Amino acid sequence: MAGNSFGSLFRLTTFGESHGKAIGGVLDGCPAGLTLDLSEIQKDLNRRKPGQSAIVTQRKEPDTVEFYSGIFEGKTTGTPIGFAIHNTNQKSHDYSHIKDSYRPSHADYVYDQKYGFRDYRGGGRSSARETASRVVAGAIAKQLLSDIKINAFVSQVGELKLDKHYKDLDFNFIESNPVRCPDPESAAKMEAYIKEIKKEGDTIGGIITCVAQNVPIGLGEPVFDKLHAELGKAMLSINAVKGFEFGSGFAGVTMKGSEHNDQFNTDGTTKTNNSGGVQGGISNGMDIYFNVAFKPVATVLQAYDTIDKDGNPVTTQGKGRHDPCVVPRAVPIVEAMTALVLADFMLLNRSTKL
Amino acid sequence: MAGNSFGSLFRLTTFGESHGKAIGGVLDGCPAGLTLDLSEIQKDLNRRKPGQSAIVTQRKEPDTVEFYSGIFEGKTTGTPIGFAIHNTNQKSHDYSHIKDSYRPSHADYVYDQKYGFRDYRGGGRSSARETASRVVAGAIAKQLLSDIKINAFVSQVGELKLDKHYKDLDFNFIESNPVRCPDPESAAKMEAYIKEIKKEGDTIGGIITCVAQNVPIGLGEPVFDKLHAELGKAMLSINAVKGFEFGSGFAGVTMKGSEHNDQFNTDGTTKTNNSGGVQGGISNGMDIYFNVAFKPVATVLQAYDTIDKDGNPVTTQGKGRHDPCVVPRAVPIVEAMTALVLADFMLLNRSTKL
Amino acid sequence: MAGNSFGSLFRLTTFGESHGKAIGGVLDGCPAGLTLDLSEIQKDLNRRKPGQSAIVTQRKEPDTVEFYSGIFEGKTTGTPIGFAIHNTNQKSHDYSHIKDSYRPSHADYVYDQKYGFRDYRGGGRSSARETASRVVAGAIAKQLLSDIKINAFVSQVGELKLDKHYKDLDFNFIESNPVRCPDPESAAKMEAYIKEIKKEGDTIGGIITCVAQNVPIGLGEPVFDKLHAELGKAMLSINAVKGFEFGSGFAGVTMKGSEHNDQFNTDGTTKTNNSGGVQGGISNGMDIYFNVAFKPVATVLQAYDTIDKDGNPVTTQGKGRHDPCVVPRAVPIVEAMTALVLADFMLLNRSTKL
Amino acid sequence: MAGNSFGSLFRLTTFGESHGKAIGGVLDGCPAGLTLDLSEIQKDLNRRKPGQSAIVTQRKEPDTVEFYSGIFEGKTTGTPIGFAIHNTNQKSHDYSHIKDSYRPSHADYVYDQKYGFRDYRGGGRSSARETASRVVAGAIAKQLLSDIKINAFVSQVGELKLDKHYKDLDFNFIESNPVRCPDPESAAKMEAYIKEIKKEGDTIGGIITCVAQNVPIGLGEPVFDKLHAELGKAMLSINAVKGFEFGSGFAGVTMKGSEHNDQFNTDGTTKTNNSGGVQGGISNGMDIYFNVAFKPVATVLQAYDTIDKDGNPVTTQGKGRHDPCVVPRAVPIVEAMTALVLADFMLLNRSTKL
Repeated sequence: MAGNSFGSLFRLTTFGESHGKAIGGVLDGCPAGLTLDLSEIQKDLNRRKPGQSAIVTQRKEPDTVEFYSGIFEGKTTGTPIGFAIHNTNQKSHDYSHIKDSYRPSHADYVYDQKYGFRDYRGGGRSSARETASRVVAGAIAKQLLSDIKINAFVSQVGELKLDKHYKDLDFNFIESNPVRCPDPESAAKMEAYIKEIKKEGDTIGGIITCVAQNVPIGLGEPVFDKLHAELGKAMLSINAVKGFEFGSGFAGVTMKGSEHNDQFNTDGTTKTNNSGGVQGGISNGMDIYFNVAFKPVATVLQAYDTIDKDGNPVTTQGKGRHDPCVVPRAVPIVEAMTALVLADFMLLNRSTKL
Repeated sequence: MAGNSFGSLFRLTTFGESHGKAIGGVLDGCPAGLTLDLSEIQKDLNRRKPGQSAIVTQRKEPDTVEFYSGIFEGKTTGTPIGFAIHNTNQKSHDYSHIKDSYRPSHADYVYDQKYGFRDYRGGGRSSARETASRVVAGAIAKQLLSDIKINAFVSQVGELKLDKHYKDLDFNFIESNPVRCPDPESAAKMEAYIKEIKKEGDTIGGIITCVAQNVPIGLGEPVFDKLHAELGKAMLSINAVKGFEFGSGFAGVTMKGSEHNDQFNTDGTTKTNNSGGVQGGISNGMDIYFNVAFKPVATVLQAYDTIDKDGNPVTTQGKGRHDPCVVPRAVPIVEAMTALVLADFMLLNRSTKL
Repeated sequence: MAGNSFGSLFRLTTFGESHGKAIGGVLDGCPAGLTLDLSEIQKDLNRRKPGQSAIVTQRKEPDTVEFYSGIFEGKTTGTPIGFAIHNTNQKSHDYSHIKDSYRPSHADYVYDQKYGFRDYRGGGRSSARETASRVVAGAIAKQLLSDIKINAFVSQVGELKLDKHYKDLDFNFIESNPVRCPDPESAAKMEAYIKEIKKEGDTIGGIITCVAQNVPIGLGEPVFDKLHAELGKAMLSINAVKGFEFGSGFAGVTMKGSEHNDQFNTDGTTKTNNSGGVQGGISNGMDIYFNVAFKPVATVLQAYDTIDKDGNPVTTQGKGRHDPCVVPRAVPIVEAMTALVLADFMLLNRSTKL
Repeated sequence: MAGNSFGSLFRLTTFGESHGKAIGGVLDGCPAGLTLDLSEIQKDLNRRKPGQSAIVTQRKEPDTVEFYSGIFEGKTTGTPIGFAIHNTNQKSHDYSHIKDSYRPSHADYVYDQKYGFRDYRGGGRSSARETASRVVAGAIAKQLLSDIKINAFVSQVGELKLDKHYKDLDFNFIESNPVRCPDPESAAKMEAYIKEIKKEGDTIGGIITCVAQNVPIGLGEPVFDKLHAELGKAMLSINAVKGFEFGSGFAGVTMKGSEHNDQFNTDGTTKTNNSGGVQGGISNGMDIYFNVAFKPVATVLQAYDTIDKDGNPVTTQGKGRHDPCVVPRAVPIVEAMTALVLADFMLLNRSTKL
């Protein structure tokens, strides 16, 4: 209930602060008998980890996951999968600039208000470092959902927009550039722009689009736990996310029903897919696609005014290493959360019928 | 787990099909000792009910709620509040046109696929009629949260956009017109446009904006159950919703961190509110505001092509009564879901500190 | 979380006070496609209802269940099954003797302390009347578990003990007498004894034994949600229950491992069944059997000393109608709770393996 | 849902197999600001660990807990407390005698049936080794509940029964002997008896009595989550437990209501306490006391007949180190589970009233 678990049958519980001993989690409810390729899990962690390219934070964390349980002779046993990622970059930093003052648009202030105090070393629990645990569990979910293809990619950085329908893109290009945009030309522009932003010590927002293909019909539970509602919650729970839309999304608002309705083909597929693969909260077998909006990261390497714990105004200088744009590293996180949602609904759906 | 419950400590479970005997629910976890004004609950139901104006469906349902338990001598007892709304409009209709064929962009097809068969009288469980139960529970939540002001209103219909910041609006005008737009001039245009759409037998989408004011600091749980993530899920669980954004939302994508960051005043409030009242998933005391995108209703009163159960193409004529635009009636639903989320987090927050 | 729900995938939420308008519930998660025999449900309700014989309370309640949703053309639809039992016996009683004073060993005092006040008409929510809703849901669970045979019966009343192993009993005799003891001779003695107790205006305790046969191997989840742990919780949640033991139970304490261990037959069954059909929290295919201890009902028709709300000593006279021994009417409740536990674990078990 | 979590607001999730890398868990929902004495936690672990005396298994495990998160500057932060106990005793054993054959009254057979295969090194997940994680979380709960005194002790070993009321015992003597029986004379007899059993290579059952004193009025939720029902589930979830009774328990069955009812004193306490400190599922401020029955451990160091995976009869010799009687080491586990239940209900009770 305290917000550190996700999923019902396929359920991840995470722990850990950015500068504590370790982060990690327990994945409970993974069915027994799944042959796990551990290198695939580490590969997704590497896609998320800092220091992987010139346009992400240069902090060094190997982010190597250690599994404690739930896997035996290469297969899941049906018992909980406990794992940890030890924090190696937790040397005695100087935290004086953030211990007693609040960084604007960070969670420092609300944590102090909610809990009475906080682990002031870095972002503590509110740091996006926590998402590494999600990537571990998501990578396991992907292997469980081997028939489903989940591809996320960067479709916008600041004003730079990838103006192509996802069907006209080759997802094989996603990992070909540090931005994770499948269109090489757009990717190059975005990369140059992010470098510019970085030089200014500033940050910029962006959009990640995600497409899940080959999803079986019937996933999602009616009324409150609609498939797209859980996907929306999953995405909004990722640090820096400010918006979610699926299918026709916000653009659907201006359409008429007669043009928005997806007409059926005789095999149950539809001629158009404004529904985004979900009808009444349940997958209909068409591609599920959605957009996730990320705000610019709050950590800027510039001087800024703020207040200290006693409400006194102070001026501080942002320092160290930071992500000028969060979306390239967030791509595997979006995929991971998508996989967690789909895996859970796949298991839930086993109880739908007699 | 089957998706008919919402909330953890303040928890609503609903039941009921559009053309069954009754819809209703159980609200569990409402604290004891709350004096309930039952007429306020009925008032919110009346804002949602069909037939209330010329621009909504003309179906007749009194939507009178009957309480069975949990209230004694005018106050909540702390035990579950059971309630039902009896369906009066369930005369023996002719359902032959929807029994064996699938309406495009409705849930008919996926229900048949998921459950093996469906209650084909109207939308059954997938009908928006179910949201009446949410309005009942939400109206109780509002009374529990008496210090918090929740105002939702229509801010866009089709291309017609209310181009004013919510701070420049007088919420007292929301109920002054059938559209529920607080700007009379915009409201008049929207109303005329909806009538036009209705005449065509077509439908149109829209946006509802919601503002929650005077929310205490500290609501929301970190990591997975962030305040805005639950709000997003709550909104996306409402029929016809395709998108959710809060604070700077999708527009925040194009901003730089240096301009997006909300600088503190010395009292902990912020000079700007791009964060939309939520930092790191936790309310910071500023106004919470968000937009909810609704697609055009799928039921159009025109001829359309579709398929029957066996995959044969059929042509059907939409008939009866329908909502040309769903947003005016969805305003109290958005408010209700907002209240349910906030009430739950308020109770959860009682366990945060020693 | 407020304690009015039971089960995870097959989940019952109940509402209602003994003297309110209605009691009832919502059963969520029943798989679609189950053909329901409603008369079987009513039959179990009749086995629980007051006034059915000379040895139970003579209060008159028809206890007719009305279904609101989730059943269509005789089959479950997979959507929540809402139901209510209207209270007919709620005429304006004189509650003055219990409104302001506390009946010993009732929940009056703790409800006032916990909630600040209480619905003082009868037992309110703490009345065993609430268990009628469990019987409804349990009767549906029984139909879902049609291959499993669940038989509960009275095995002890006061000192009168049925000294036969359950394998030597013919369960067909359970309903042949008002005590619900399958041994006619013992039943006659028990019945006579209960009548004597009734004449004294007193009450007496008893034990119900329950046997579940033909349970598939594999039900129950390791560690915290062991099959027998959930059964124990289910039984202990029934009013007046003070103890639970399964398999060898308390008697197993004095046995040595070498005699307690159940040796295997070559087909995986065991030669003895001290384990009571459960190993490590998981059903092993052998009969599941357990005992449930009920204390004597607290309502006695005698004068007694107690205190009022202000702590003043008062003397009161118990009056009206009461159950001299609760176990005959509790037999269908024990069966219902057993069925709810097994149905839930049966659905959960669908996610155990790939 | 897969059974590895316990509690709702104060929630423990555990992981780990007996012979894997580590066991451990995540404790979520512990309120912020609790000053933790880590040595007290280790002290409880030491009371549970193997090798502590001549009457328990001589296996060597230091059972040192390592905390990863949720504690900062000596206090809980309100974020999840992740911890691990590394298994040091996992050298390459010879498991051939249990890999392919099933030990009677162990979980080997049902795990293979339920999951398709199992981690056959020792008991895997079904080993009581898992309870060490419960002791860690329970020791934290005890510190949260500092006003409540929880004392468990051995009250029976085989036929040797401690025939004294708990009020006539001095709990300070519990830790004075390896049996953990507070009556030195009885303890000596029990100890001698256990040594005898050990010499035979056999095992014997026992009973643990637990008393929780100074529990505030109002803990426990009505209907399904009654305080004693959760306590019962908690106890029955401990390995080898076969029965649970509280207050008058099974003996209450033979009492009449007129003698069983607990008469009130004018301060709301009661003259007797047959209720065991719980009325209607809610604590009434009197001592909570209950008995937990443990069967004899299944591992005997004798030859026994059993079957292999293919159903062939085999004869095996139990070997190695074992607990001749489990109750001395189970005392801290019973206390831990009691503390977890009470801590959870204490937090839940914060939402009962306005």
